[in-house]
Amino acid sequence: MFRIDINCDMGEGFGAYELGTDEEILEFVTSANIACGYHAGDPSVMRKTVRLALDKGVAIGAHPGLPDLAGFGRRNMALSPQEAYDITVYQIGALSGFVRAEGAIMQHVKPHGALYNMAAQSKGLAEAIAEAVYKVNPELVLFGLSGSELIAAGEKMGLQTASEVFADRTYQQDGSLTPRRHADAVIADTETAMQQVIRMIKEGKVRSLQGKDIPLKADTICIHGDGAHALAFAQSIRHVLQDEAVQVKAFKLG
Amino acid sequence: MFRIDINCDMGEGFGAYELGTDEEILEFVTSANIACGYHAGDPSVMRKTVRLALDKGVAIGAHPGLPDLAGFGRRNMALSPQEAYDITVYQIGALSGFVRAEGAIMQHVKPHGALYNMAAQSKGLAEAIAEAVYKVNPELVLFGLSGSELIAAGEKMGLQTASEVFADRTYQQDGSLTPRRHADAVIADTETAMQQVIRMIKEGKVRSLQGKDIPLKADTICIHGDGAHALAFAQSIRHVLQDEAVQVKAFKLG
Amino acid sequence: MFRIDINCDMGEGFGAYELGTDEEILEFVTSANIACGYHAGDPSVMRKTVRLALDKGVAIGAHPGLPDLAGFGRRNMALSPQEAYDITVYQIGALSGFVRAEGAIMQHVKPHGALYNMAAQSKGLAEAIAEAVYKVNPELVLFGLSGSELIAAGEKMGLQTASEVFADRTYQQDGSLTPRRHADAVIADTETAMQQVIRMIKEGKVRSLQGKDIPLKADTICIHGDGAHALAFAQSIRHVLQDEAVQVKAFKLG
Amino acid sequence: MFRIDINCDMGEGFGAYELGTDEEILEFVTSANIACGYHAGDPSVMRKTVRLALDKGVAIGAHPGLPDLAGFGRRNMALSPQEAYDITVYQIGALSGFVRAEGAIMQHVKPHGALYNMAAQSKGLAEAIAEAVYKVNPELVLFGLSGSELIAAGEKMGLQTASEVFADRTYQQDGSLTPRRHADAVIADTETAMQQVIRMIKEGKVRSLQGKDIPLKADTICIHGDGAHALAFAQSIRHVLQDEAVQVKAFKLG
Repeated sequence: MFRIDINCDMGEGFGAYELGTDEEILEFVTSANIACGYHAGDPSVMRKTVRLALDKGVAIGAHPGLPDLAGFGRRNMALSPQEAYDITVYQIGALSGFVRAEGAIMQHVKPHGALYNMAAQSKGLAEAIAEAVYKVNPELVLFGLSGSELIAAGEKMGLQTASEVFADRTYQQDGSLTPRRHADAVIADTETAMQQVIRMIKEGKVRSLQGKDIPLKADTICIHGDGAHALAFAQSIRHVLQDEAVQVKAFKLG
Repeated sequence: MFRIDINCDMGEGFGAYELGTDEEILEFVTSANIACGYHAGDPSVMRKTVRLALDKGVAIGAHPGLPDLAGFGRRNMALSPQEAYDITVYQIGALSGFVRAEGAIMQHVKPHGALYNMAAQSKGLAEAIAEAVYKVNPELVLFGLSGSELIAAGEKMGLQTASEVFADRTYQQDGSLTPRRHADAVIADTETAMQQVIRMIKEGKVRSLQGKDIPLKADTICIHGDGAHALAFAQSIRHVLQDEAVQVKAFKLG
Repeated sequence: MFRIDINCDMGEGFGAYELGTDEEILEFVTSANIACGYHAGDPSVMRKTVRLALDKGVAIGAHPGLPDLAGFGRRNMALSPQEAYDITVYQIGALSGFVRAEGAIMQHVKPHGALYNMAAQSKGLAEAIAEAVYKVNPELVLFGLSGSELIAAGEKMGLQTASEVFADRTYQQDGSLTPRRHADAVIADTETAMQQVIRMIKEGKVRSLQGKDIPLKADTICIHGDGAHALAFAQSIRHVLQDEAVQVKAFKLG
Repeated sequence: MFRIDINCDMGEGFGAYELGTDEEILEFVTSANIACGYHAGDPSVMRKTVRLALDKGVAIGAHPGLPDLAGFGRRNMALSPQEAYDITVYQIGALSGFVRAEGAIMQHVKPHGALYNMAAQSKGLAEAIAEAVYKVNPELVLFGLSGSELIAAGEKMGLQTASEVFADRTYQQDGSLTPRRHADAVIADTETAMQQVIRMIKEGKVRSLQGKDIPLKADTICIHGDGAHALAFAQSIRHVLQDEAVQVKAFKLG
């Protein structure tokens, strides 16, 4: 039987600022990537989001980002591997405080935004992040783009990894996501996105924008928690996966 | 046989900024309070300081402070107990990431600066901090001013506590430290400071500025790591304690 | 003829975070208090908000706050007068960069949140802030709570001041606002609020919660830009002021 | 007669952290680049540094940097031109608050660290920064690497520019500085550095590491304010310039 995890970024508010629809989206996902205070999130938001995920039976992961609150962690920064290691250890640790305070366990780590993208392509950053995860807790699952340097680094380190695919993003021939600045980066049509997801899960393939099939591994699907269509999209995915008899399940539970 | 711990704040650099003489002062102390990135410290400094303390066989503690880097955590802020709980969990967690990455364990938690002072007097803040410590890890030792609300809250919560005394600070009749803005807040004469320390340890008393003896408990002495005389002062304390046959030892080791 | 200014806080977004309904509320106010990056706002938000205010013909003011983004500048901090002076100069200067870049002039300065409240009661902080405003530009109008230390300090310094009143807040017998934590701090009934405003403008009086009339000066009314009823409330005020033949006008224009 | 300005970065402390030897180095320079709170500096440091420069008769400039205090503004960040414009306006404005509060005028703007380097090579960033400077105050002098995109953008915008050269750094054949990570990036020998400076001023040339002479314009020399040899080096430069009858003078005075 086919099986998939569904993950979503959350806990991205800060102080007086709210973002996303965490409570609603939690109904549809099995893994929650919780911001750790660098690109978004603050201690109060982290506590509440951990509690919320536990109440909904959703597995908890740290979502470490670049130290760039003003840029929401989306602007590339020239970090050294050592700096990437340090900020990853710090943020996993910070979230683990709240997880332990609730008597739960953390399932995974997924880098955010520019850190995720840089670690997909830079072996040095990928290995630094994988080492950080392993050293803090070798039981953690490392989430990364399917086929990326981050997944390779996690496997080399001996971590369980989860290859991530995107339902509503198009792929390039080299397996990378089409950058968001391109007009055809996002798949607007829900039906097309659903077909892409099912094919990724069942055939391990996706049709690239250049028209060629490329292989990938689909352990977890990333969905988005904000925007007008987020909830409807999440609901559609769950329905389609049920119709296709794909089991939706996290890797470990808190 | 009398026994005492000696603690010192460290890891207070940030980015390009250095502060203190951690490497030297570690020769004289048994417990290190390591800044966690709020009032001072950053992930790189935290990693290095944890490593340094382990190399010297000094027990490691988290030193959570107010979110006020510009004020070095020394300016009182009107935090709610919930906010104090949240920032304490966050900072203990963050440091524990580095401690676990080094395969070590954390011994204690000591709030910094204004958070320490506010928690000495406010029952609400004290209980919030004690709960944060307990929930993250009930094995942690809570450091607080001898006779303070923080020590009372720690005991009520069921934590091991360490009552802290100051060698070179004068005391008020109510057991509080004379505020630094007063001319006679600091004991400049080393000999006087040493006599105060020995009496606190052996008799459980200190002579207040008002001339009356007050009782206190001396589990750990706080010494400072910066300033011209810090190292000489630390050395003097160690000599005097040795002469007086007081054992100098941490509570738990990493 | 009676005359009043209406001011509103705005430009309170930060990075990916949005807050308030600046564009809509600008239709109803004559003075805009623009956040300067400490409690809220960032350079991009500041630029856009200055531009927006100019497009709507609304006078521009700096809205300096405490360095506490996580607390939205609402938590009291133990700042020295020198520190209050420094952060006020910094923030007025930062906003003036955008104002000058648009070829406009700044009308006023109104401290935000806890800084506003502390400056209402502390003569030392009030004088430091008034001096900061005066030294950066003696033509600026200083906004402060009617009857507060801040207004007194501004007048002593030789600044033009604007005494601020609140339509939907209740007053204590000493002229202070009823703190928000009290059940009757806010006037929920629009009709009652409107009567309070008109009486403050025409009679220079408000009925305190204790039942006694207290005198005040009404140069500018503060209205809020977020919350469900903000726009409807703003509209009501404008209608009532028109019906009562009160002229609504800023002090100076950019 | 030949003429040159000497500039130095200063005001780089933050809160409890001190950096550099501003008071001493001010004896040797004619232009001070004052940090504006993003990569270094805080409002109190800015006030004191402006005052210090005025007392020594040294011209004042804003030294805007990337929003990266932990990285001291030295890590490249993928800023858009609009973001570069916004943070430049903000920081020039913030420093201008202190300059105006002291009744002085600002002479120049020199971007810091990674912002300086990125603006030397990216036309888009260079034009955004030049526009920011011009719009805040068209009388400001824009400092940039000799031959850089920033100087070109400043001239295109109609600003007075100052082409900067480095006494103790080696140059590449394309006119760029040898990156610091290279072994031969810095000229350790004072005598060699002095000869390089004099030749740059009098002949408008520098010998690149590749052995070929390259043309440059020398309006201002950058010297460093920290490090063991900073003061001795500064003193040497002043002596050599005096011996060589080169006039040392700022562009405008406060």
